[in-house]
Amino acid sequence: MSDHNMNECIDNCIKCAVVCVETVKHCLTKGGQHASPEHIGLLQTCADICTVSANAMLRGIEGHKVTCGACAEICRQCAEACERMGDDEAMRRCAEACRRCAESCAQMASM
Amino acid sequence: MSDHNMNECIDNCIKCAVVCVETVKHCLTKGGQHASPEHIGLLQTCADICTVSANAMLRGIEGHKVTCGACAEICRQCAEACERMGDDEAMRRCAEACRRCAESCAQMASM
Amino acid sequence: MSDHNMNECIDNCIKCAVVCVETVKHCLTKGGQHASPEHIGLLQTCADICTVSANAMLRGIEGHKVTCGACAEICRQCAEACERMGDDEAMRRCAEACRRCAESCAQMASM
Amino acid sequence: MSDHNMNECIDNCIKCAVVCVETVKHCLTKGGQHASPEHIGLLQTCADICTVSANAMLRGIEGHKVTCGACAEICRQCAEACERMGDDEAMRRCAEACRRCAESCAQMASM
Repeated sequence: MSDHNMNECIDNCIKCAVVCVETVKHCLTKGGQHASPEHIGLLQTCADICTVSANAMLRGIEGHKVTCGACAEICRQCAEACERMGDDEAMRRCAEACRRCAESCAQMASM
Repeated sequence: MSDHNMNECIDNCIKCAVVCVETVKHCLTKGGQHASPEHIGLLQTCADICTVSANAMLRGIEGHKVTCGACAEICRQCAEACERMGDDEAMRRCAEACRRCAESCAQMASM
Repeated sequence: MSDHNMNECIDNCIKCAVVCVETVKHCLTKGGQHASPEHIGLLQTCADICTVSANAMLRGIEGHKVTCGACAEICRQCAEACERMGDDEAMRRCAEACRRCAESCAQMASM
Repeated sequence: MSDHNMNECIDNCIKCAVVCVETVKHCLTKGGQHASPEHIGLLQTCADICTVSANAMLRGIEGHKVTCGACAEICRQCAEACERMGDDEAMRRCAEACRRCAESCAQMASM
C-alpha cells in the first residue's frame, strides 16, 4: 500500500462523512421513507465510521485495517439504501461518495 | 438476540470507551513504550469505535452488526496491547474492559 | 471543584448523550415537527458535545471548561426544544437529562 | 453571514481536525513535553470540537454558534500550546491551522 493510496482513502472518508451529514438534513426535509429511523441512523453511522477510519489512518495504527473494513461495508449499505430511495440528485450524490469511500476502504482493509 | 443482551453490550461499549480515554492519560503520564504512537492511537481508536457501536445500537439500525464486529476486533487488539505492557493495575483494568466489550460485541455481530 | 463533582459531570454527560441518541430514534418514529432538521440536528449535536466534554474531563485538560460551557448551553437549548414539543414521556425524559447535564457542566465551566 | 463564509468555516474545521490528529502522532514520536497528557489531550479535544462544529454547520442548526464559539477558544488554546513548543515545522503548521479555524469560527459565533 502506498502513502498515496492511504491519503486518497483518508480524503474519501472525510468527503463521505460530510456528504452523509448533509444528506441527513436533505432527507429530514423530504420526510417520508427518507426520514425513517433506519435510513437516518445509517447515514449518521456512516458519517461516524468514516471519521473513525480517517483518524485511524492519520494515527498510522495497524488497526486501521479493521476500521476500514467496517467502513467499507457500512458505506456499501448506505449507498444501496440511497440508491433504493430512487430518483433524486442528493441521493445519487451520497451514493457516489459512499461507493468511492467503500472501494478505497476495502483496498486498505485487504493490505 | 434479546434486548437485555443489546443493552448490556451498549453498557460495555460505553464503559470501555471511558476506560480507554482514562488509560491514554495514564500511559502518557508513564511515558516510554506506554506512550508510543501505536499504543496511544489504538487506545483512542478503541474509544472511538466503542462510541460508534453504542450509538449504532441505540439507533436500532441493522448496520450495528458491522460496527460491533469491528469493535470486537479492535477491543481484542487493545486488550492484547495492554496485556503486553505487563504488570500495571491500570493496564489490567483497561484489558478487562476491552475483553468484556469484545465478547458482547462479537455476540451482537453474529446475530 | 472536587473530583466528585467532575465524576458526576462526566456521568451526566454520558447519560445525556445516550438519551439524546435514543430520542432521535423516538422523534423520527413520531415524525412531524419532532423530525424537523433543526430538532434532530440539535439532539445529535447535543449528544456529540456531551461526548466531547466527557472526554475532555477524562483527559484532565484545562480546556474542559470551554467544552463544558458550550455543552451547558447546547443542553439548555435541547431541553427547551424538547419541552416545546409538549406532552410526551420521551421528550420529558430527554429534557430532564439535558437539564441535569447543563447544570453540572455550567458548574464545571465556572471553576 | 453568507453561505460562502460558512462553507469556508466548515472547511477550516475539517482541515484543523486532520492536522491536530496528525500532530498527536508527531508529538508522541518526539516525546518529552510534546507528549504530555495536557498537550496530547488538548490536540485531540481540538480535533473533536472541530468535527462537532463542522457537523453542526452542515446540519444547519442554530446551535452552531455555540459550538463554533467553543471551537474558536479551544483552537486558540491549541495554537498557543503549539507555539510554546517552539521551533518545529509541524507545530507551526498545526498552530496555523488552529489560528485559521479560530478566526472563522469566532466570526460564525458572532453572527
